[in-house]
Amino acid sequence: MEVRKIVLTEDEIPRQWYNILADIKLNPPLGPNGKPVGPDDLAPVFPMNLIEQEMSTERWIDIPEPVLDVLSIWRPSPLVRALSLERAIGTPAKIFFKNESVSPPGSHKPNTAIPQVYYNKVFGIKRITTETGAGQWGSALSFACSQFGLECKVFMVRVSFDQKPYRKAMMEAWGGKCVASPSTETRAGRAALEKNPDTPGSLGIAISEAVEAAVSDTSGETRYSLGSVLNHVMLHQTIMGLEAKKQLEKVGLYPDVIIGCAGGGSNFAGLAFPFVLDKINGKEIEIYPVEPAACPTLTRAPFVYDHGDTAGYTPLLPMHSLGHDFVPPPFHAGGLRYHGMAPTVSQLADEGLITPKSVTQLSAYEAGVKFARTEGHIPAPETTHALACVIDEALKAKEEGKEKVILANWSGHGLLDLGAYERFFAKDLSDFELSDDEIRASEKDYENFPRPEHLKSR
Amino acid sequence: MEVRKIVLTEDEIPRQWYNILADIKLNPPLGPNGKPVGPDDLAPVFPMNLIEQEMSTERWIDIPEPVLDVLSIWRPSPLVRALSLERAIGTPAKIFFKNESVSPPGSHKPNTAIPQVYYNKVFGIKRITTETGAGQWGSALSFACSQFGLECKVFMVRVSFDQKPYRKAMMEAWGGKCVASPSTETRAGRAALEKNPDTPGSLGIAISEAVEAAVSDTSGETRYSLGSVLNHVMLHQTIMGLEAKKQLEKVGLYPDVIIGCAGGGSNFAGLAFPFVLDKINGKEIEIYPVEPAACPTLTRAPFVYDHGDTAGYTPLLPMHSLGHDFVPPPFHAGGLRYHGMAPTVSQLADEGLITPKSVTQLSAYEAGVKFARTEGHIPAPETTHALACVIDEALKAKEEGKEKVILANWSGHGLLDLGAYERFFAKDLSDFELSDDEIRASEKDYENFPRPEHLKSR
Repeated sequence: MEVRKIVLTEDEIPRQWYNILADIKLNPPLGPNGKPVGPDDLAPVFPMNLIEQEMSTERWIDIPEPVLDVLSIWRPSPLVRALSLERAIGTPAKIFFKNESVSPPGSHKPNTAIPQVYYNKVFGIKRITTETGAGQWGSALSFACSQFGLECKVFMVRVSFDQKPYRKAMMEAWGGKCVASPSTETRAGRAALEKNPDTPGSLGIAISEAVEAAVSDTSGETRYSLGSVLNHVMLHQTIMGLEAKKQLEKVGLYPDVIIGCAGGGSNFAGLAFPFVLDKINGKEIEIYPVEPAACPTLTRAPFVYDHGDTAGYTPLLPMHSLGHDFVPPPFHAGGLRYHGMAPTVSQLADEGLITPKSVTQLSAYEAGVKFARTEGHIPAPETTHALACVIDEALKAKEEGKEKVILANWSGHGLLDLGAYERFFAKDLSDFELSDDEIRASEKDYENFPRPEHLKSR
Repeated sequence: MEVRKIVLTEDEIPRQWYNILADIKLNPPLGPNGKPVGPDDLAPVFPMNLIEQEMSTERWIDIPEPVLDVLSIWRPSPLVRALSLERAIGTPAKIFFKNESVSPPGSHKPNTAIPQVYYNKVFGIKRITTETGAGQWGSALSFACSQFGLECKVFMVRVSFDQKPYRKAMMEAWGGKCVASPSTETRAGRAALEKNPDTPGSLGIAISEAVEAAVSDTSGETRYSLGSVLNHVMLHQTIMGLEAKKQLEKVGLYPDVIIGCAGGGSNFAGLAFPFVLDKINGKEIEIYPVEPAACPTLTRAPFVYDHGDTAGYTPLLPMHSLGHDFVPPPFHAGGLRYHGMAPTVSQLADEGLITPKSVTQLSAYEAGVKFARTEGHIPAPETTHALACVIDEALKAKEEGKEKVILANWSGHGLLDLGAYERFFAKDLSDFELSDDEIRASEKDYENFPRPEHLKSR
């Protein structure tokens, strides 16, 4: 019987995160005055210990013991050989996926929610606000807050709030509060509703609401938390790639191809960055972030300075962006419906260290169903984007007769997204592709901002 | 850092199931003529290889290699130390739970779905019918059929079909077909609809429909599959208890108390039976099946001969039964809404080898929320019944100052049952307890049937 799962014991959980800022150069975030943002500028939004981590260039950063204790509720996560999928495709490739769906909220998101809440607690914060799209991040932060005894308030993009009622109940199960965004609770929310009372909402608007709710609490006991995009989020997620590397080493393998879906970038980065380090040091390896064709930041949008949110509360970040006012078409992978992309991931794409791909909604769901009917587990709509790319690579390996090792991130399960699968089976889903005109139309969002430099890390 | 999870590798998966029929005596199932049922009587319903297994008294039965291969998609399942719950309670007890939610359908059910579908396939069967209450079993059988390429048709109790739309989508994701029961597709279904067009349905009716759909296919290529109650189902589930025993041995422990929720009995039996063997051989150990106060077969219904289904298609089984016409009140743990109890579990209760308990719906949900806010994972409504008992035992251990080892079965996650949690948070759920009159009223269902003998196994 061939082995399907490579497991580690708890004492093999990595004790340090890998910080890619030690190995690449980034354009700095800019303030409203066009000058680089310093720690004090961010202090109303984040606790200072996290701001320091955001700006650190130390290569290895210790994971605090209380964080490891909570992570060990589900970590290390299994590395799974997709034997049944390989057999169904008839590929000589070995396909491995890192199963992050085993966490209580069912995705990779708590890998950063846990340390973020821990650092907030250490800093004396009592309440955390955030936004959520599909609900994965809001669930993860609610779970993390329940572990450390903090209050949690989540602004959830309205279209997902309505489509996925179970998400609210999930957050409540951990004691979190969840409201639909735009809400009437913030100026940013009220402005969005005034502009369009029937708006489906967007991640950009929800981020504005959550930031505003945090900074307007005059007690000083509330901070905001972001589930992707920022450097410290990528840092916390590297625990996945570090574990995967150990797991492959146990069977004497190293990946030829690494694949992860990319919305804000954290799930891709978490798996890929420890291998990007090897690539910078000369290793031959293909690394593919996979995004939806309907929200193609890396594959079609330019590398610019833009706000991370719609209201423009955040600093200008150097990233691939479709414009901070961009509202993506209503495809079902809520976690990939973001106008920008993490500065670190954007930088690597700009340098050609990673090779972005995009897939359409329908081909993603087809891959998801193929996966469910072979490997059993039902993937999240976001994860299906990576799987479509995995299947393409496995077919290519078959054509070429190459025994490649493919490593993919199985970022979450789709058990709270079965309504979308139902629509797929009822042939009620379609593809959306943006025209060049639509992409160009968003230029006004960032045309007056400075342009980032094209830096070289190697 | 204290270790939370005791993991086994795939080569440590048990290679044999434990068959309790080698160690206890059972009253035989009876046919319509009052005489014991033989293999041929069951042949229209089940394949002969499974019928032989149902009647076997071999103590150890080999698990076929292709079954092990598919089980290894998620097995061995982790044994988890509920450290955070222990800390929250302040108990000296060590609480362990067997996390069966890691299977693709999210419960223990595929432990028997996989071998059942395998044996059907070996016997040449092409299509399988079944019933499902909350949807766990129908999902598991659809998953199993997708692994071996068989068709699957599921009759789902209407009230759950309406409350849990995601379950149908889940079965479809694996290629299964799901209809609400009572349906117009069978005589049993039409009769139930004629009696009450607005009936919420019941497991008893759905079983009748599924059995009828199987036996009325004249091609001979369809059989029926049952997810609980029968001996071979209990047999397949013992892989859980056998794994748990190995896992506890690794840390030098043996349980003082074993707890599992009990509807038809298979999840309880699967964990408990390998330890019941030890108890028969003299080991001191408390073993608690926990049932809902609103469907109290073991704690309040008599040990009788009764049909397993409402229409009376099945043989008479020796079991604790509330009567085959009994429709339980609408509490939310669909998997526990069954009028009977597995003959093996009923026999052990009759002999005093296990000690049944019951808990009310609200105390079960309270325990479930306490668990989610400490251990993170959100339990299925069925599983919360076991957890209420776990918390009681942990408190008792605290009072007594005893360092007990409590082992419980975490039979499934509640991610498709979050609607019920939402109702709980909205204070929209209530308790149901049956009056003695209601229990007595069901006597007519079985008063004319023979009575089982009180047998002694030790």
